[in-house]
Amino acid sequence: MGFVKRVVYKPVEELDVSSTSDEVYISANVKAPRMAGLLVKLFVWFLELRILKPILLYMLKRENQVHKFVSFVDLEEPPLYVPLHPYKEHREPETKYLGSDLSPSEQVQKATECIDSTESIWESEKICFRHWTIMDYSRAYLSREITPNMVADKFIASVRQSSDPALHMSFFISCSEEEILRQANESTLRYERGDPLSALDGVPIAVKDEIDCTPYPTTGGTKWLDKVRPCTDDADCVKSLKLCGAILVGKTNMHELGAGTSGINPHYGATRNPYDVNKITGGSSSGSAAVVSAGLCPAALGVDGGGSVRIPASLCGVVGLKPTFSRVSHSGVLPLNWTIGMVGVLAGTVEDAMIVYSAISGQLPSHQPVAQTHPKVHLPFLNLPNCMPKLKLAKYDKWFSDCTCDIKLCCLNALDQLQKIYGWETIDVNLPELESMRLAHYITIGSECNASLARHLEKLNLDEVGWDARAALSLYGAFDSKEYLNAQRIRNRQLQIHQNIFDQADVIVTPTTGVTAYTIQDNALKTGELDYINGAALVRYMIAGNFLGLPAVTVPVGYDKDGLPIGLQIIGKPWSEASLIYIAYAVQALCKVDYKKPEVYYDLLSDLKRAKTA
Amino acid sequence: MGFVKRVVYKPVEELDVSSTSDEVYISANVKAPRMAGLLVKLFVWFLELRILKPILLYMLKRENQVHKFVSFVDLEEPPLYVPLHPYKEHREPETKYLGSDLSPSEQVQKATECIDSTESIWESEKICFRHWTIMDYSRAYLSREITPNMVADKFIASVRQSSDPALHMSFFISCSEEEILRQANESTLRYERGDPLSALDGVPIAVKDEIDCTPYPTTGGTKWLDKVRPCTDDADCVKSLKLCGAILVGKTNMHELGAGTSGINPHYGATRNPYDVNKITGGSSSGSAAVVSAGLCPAALGVDGGGSVRIPASLCGVVGLKPTFSRVSHSGVLPLNWTIGMVGVLAGTVEDAMIVYSAISGQLPSHQPVAQTHPKVHLPFLNLPNCMPKLKLAKYDKWFSDCTCDIKLCCLNALDQLQKIYGWETIDVNLPELESMRLAHYITIGSECNASLARHLEKLNLDEVGWDARAALSLYGAFDSKEYLNAQRIRNRQLQIHQNIFDQADVIVTPTTGVTAYTIQDNALKTGELDYINGAALVRYMIAGNFLGLPAVTVPVGYDKDGLPIGLQIIGKPWSEASLIYIAYAVQALCKVDYKKPEVYYDLLSDLKRAKTA
Repeated sequence: MGFVKRVVYKPVEELDVSSTSDEVYISANVKAPRMAGLLVKLFVWFLELRILKPILLYMLKRENQVHKFVSFVDLEEPPLYVPLHPYKEHREPETKYLGSDLSPSEQVQKATECIDSTESIWESEKICFRHWTIMDYSRAYLSREITPNMVADKFIASVRQSSDPALHMSFFISCSEEEILRQANESTLRYERGDPLSALDGVPIAVKDEIDCTPYPTTGGTKWLDKVRPCTDDADCVKSLKLCGAILVGKTNMHELGAGTSGINPHYGATRNPYDVNKITGGSSSGSAAVVSAGLCPAALGVDGGGSVRIPASLCGVVGLKPTFSRVSHSGVLPLNWTIGMVGVLAGTVEDAMIVYSAISGQLPSHQPVAQTHPKVHLPFLNLPNCMPKLKLAKYDKWFSDCTCDIKLCCLNALDQLQKIYGWETIDVNLPELESMRLAHYITIGSECNASLARHLEKLNLDEVGWDARAALSLYGAFDSKEYLNAQRIRNRQLQIHQNIFDQADVIVTPTTGVTAYTIQDNALKTGELDYINGAALVRYMIAGNFLGLPAVTVPVGYDKDGLPIGLQIIGKPWSEASLIYIAYAVQALCKVDYKKPEVYYDLLSDLKRAKTA
Repeated sequence: MGFVKRVVYKPVEELDVSSTSDEVYISANVKAPRMAGLLVKLFVWFLELRILKPILLYMLKRENQVHKFVSFVDLEEPPLYVPLHPYKEHREPETKYLGSDLSPSEQVQKATECIDSTESIWESEKICFRHWTIMDYSRAYLSREITPNMVADKFIASVRQSSDPALHMSFFISCSEEEILRQANESTLRYERGDPLSALDGVPIAVKDEIDCTPYPTTGGTKWLDKVRPCTDDADCVKSLKLCGAILVGKTNMHELGAGTSGINPHYGATRNPYDVNKITGGSSSGSAAVVSAGLCPAALGVDGGGSVRIPASLCGVVGLKPTFSRVSHSGVLPLNWTIGMVGVLAGTVEDAMIVYSAISGQLPSHQPVAQTHPKVHLPFLNLPNCMPKLKLAKYDKWFSDCTCDIKLCCLNALDQLQKIYGWETIDVNLPELESMRLAHYITIGSECNASLARHLEKLNLDEVGWDARAALSLYGAFDSKEYLNAQRIRNRQLQIHQNIFDQADVIVTPTTGVTAYTIQDNALKTGELDYINGAALVRYMIAGNFLGLPAVTVPVGYDKDGLPIGLQIIGKPWSEASLIYIAYAVQALCKVDYKKPEVYYDLLSDLKRAKTA
């Protein structure tokens, strides 16, 4: 291996994370052309050829610097296998503690108490556009102005319209009108009895098709996974939402197996961006982002293993919250990996993200047989003038240059405003070894997905698998145990590096993505596409949230010259969701005046209210 | 892969662990002939040939059922990467709690309080033989009858004699007379001032050459590891012993890299069994077992990654205690693996194992950056008549048949006696899937060793590595990430299976080994040997202790027809060392009347006392 350039990692304590550090920034060095159509097929055929496979994988690993940064390295750290963080209380904005024995609906009640007084931020100024919120639904139902049944009818009509060949939004993989009406009817009866379960009662909420939600199958965006793994029970997070009375309106489209970020699914269609139907939504929780953006639901559940909640949230102009690893029970979520993914919330507003987060968080994780202490769940009072902590936001300069100009300006402007209006200081830092972390994360999620699915894949007719997913699955199986273990050792290093950053700052701020939604090309529709360059730009700022299990949130902060949404990401210390929600809320308060309505938008409540008045 | 027989693992809750279970017992199905001399060399040459290696490894994995039991399997469990157990208090014999802020010497003081009153078990009857204990040394020093300096002189003379070409015991890899005398002199001065540090002050203790102990290099039984990883500080456990005043008498011989169980080291000699110098000691902590057995030290430190403390303890007729994973700080121990190995104690008596255990346990592990709650350390009062809890001992019938007849009879006899004299009930259970666990453990320890050492091995002149270690290193690098992950999923299953056993019984009892010490063959001396059949018989009962991080202890219970020692192993629940020590003490009390003196034995204290009287 003499010809392989190998990295000698220095001791973490010798790494300089200050802005004057001479640690170099390596922009993701992806060596692969965009492939779609016939090219993807050829690539997959080669990859699947027994004789060529080892040679091709070796070359791909070498060209993409896996050898240099992971396989053959000098490294002291032991592996950190699971990013389970010891629970710590933080210096946080004024918060409400959710006792450890509250029911989901009691937790939602606490959340509404935190936001009730602040509804005014949406009314005090001239707002171009805002999504209807959970509280809007709740108030409309309580006032008997509108019923869940009416919403359900309107919802069903809108979904039908969105699936029309003219639009072909491909929001859902499965969506049973009968089931929606059944749930809506029960909810309507509860309101008639004056006995709603919570503010979520009757509110339509969609679920990514990676999360079990009866009576639907869980396909994971595939044509086969639901057959070998029947969905027999609700996931814990879905159970919680049902206990709150929410109407689970169906299973949203996703990138096949979550193995990509475009949201182009060859079986169920490319989910289309409500801001421009020719653009991707991002993924893998593509449908969940799109239905929220298009006004069908105030919130939806996603799963975030490599930005899969935050990327489509950002590209579709909604809020995306990925909690700390193990904060939300993983029981009933497809085991596509074990140490990376986390259920997250997509919502039209920060308040709604908080309400749904409060409903699903706080159960003990069923992830590991080795028990863990139960971390406390706090929620912030969303009340800007009264509680304005002095916060420090860490910012890595290089990251704000490795994105489109519009994104850079828009995100920097938001930070400027935060400084001016709230006095929140931005601190320049250096985040070393990001390319190593990106590769280590890929090796980890790939190896775990491969180990988890292998028993099914061995029996599978490969024709049932999309071409880009087949390519991904071949690459996922490419790693040896040393590469997996070295990836976990890099995880250990990066956690220490991030702990050093968090010694100086409360959060890290980044653009959410390096590019905005790009065009869906026709040749990708049937085969999917392998666009590792755009893919790298989408996941650029995502990795720490997943690989280190840190909580992170994205909030819309503006639009590019084509009117496509831009998100700002805030990454927090473990268990600091309350701070993140608070900061996201503050960002939203600053940016809300410019919020634009998506091109495809279903204004459920207005239409109903108008009909009522008429 | 159609031709590979694959195992479909059923849900753990459907596994029957009762004695009437129809789960089959698969005796380790090792497909490899004993190899030594030229045969080992040929095997290694083939394994290291770039072209042949993949094919050979594939065949070896298939023949040894790795494919069937690990690589291609149907399995539901998520991986359990690190056997870190949540701390739980147990129903235990009357114990003394070591507060969390005691110094090592204060902890030793507590330990001596637990045994002081019981010294009588060695005096009340006609004992054929017993080792001098730490308390014997302490009392002799305190009475000024003997000084640490005198012991040091005698010790040095004995080591010289043992290294004599006639005997060539190969106890030590490094042992500095100057350093021993320096420490002994300091200790002697402390006793003269009437100010000894603890009962361990002046007591000779040896350390396996896998643990850092200044001023010695840490070779790990190799010719090179100390050059690329200089020893710059004492390991935490050695620091504790030094704080107690113990004389660290040198670094004991071990199987090269701990990668075998015979204790035949091509660089530093085959450690010879004090009960028969033509026999192995077992390994890898071969020297530590041998010096205790031969009377040079009342106790020694070892490291146990696959029975490496318990196997040689059993074969050399001494006590071997492997604590719960993470109970003893791993800081300063060679990182030959990260999730398996644990510092352990070898001692002439259970009391001495307890004293040394009390000195080194209770510090927070520096293993992982993610913190862990500090588990309490308890010690039992070793006082048989007054506190006799009713205990249940689980026993797997098949295990008592898969060993030599002498071992079977001897161990069953000990259990009979425990039942008769203490009323401890033996419960028959079934331990399913042991062969899967053995393979999963091998994959894990191999992959971790390979990842940890790779950076050195790539630069190494292979001529510096012994032939059997070279074979091991080639095999260690044979596993892909799926095999590593599946091994961790099997770890999860086995932990659940063992938890089911522990719901019915307090401990599991097994023979410590399937064979007693076997003959060192001449052709193994230079090349080492690959004897996977005998190796499997040695590690047969060891795996749960390492792979699941469970505490375990071995106590001598008799001798085979050739006079070679036999050990009984007791495996406990996590953190139940107090119970294990108590039970081991009870076993010792029953068996002590038959204890035989080793062929090679240095009677340090008698000689000195006799000289004094003369």
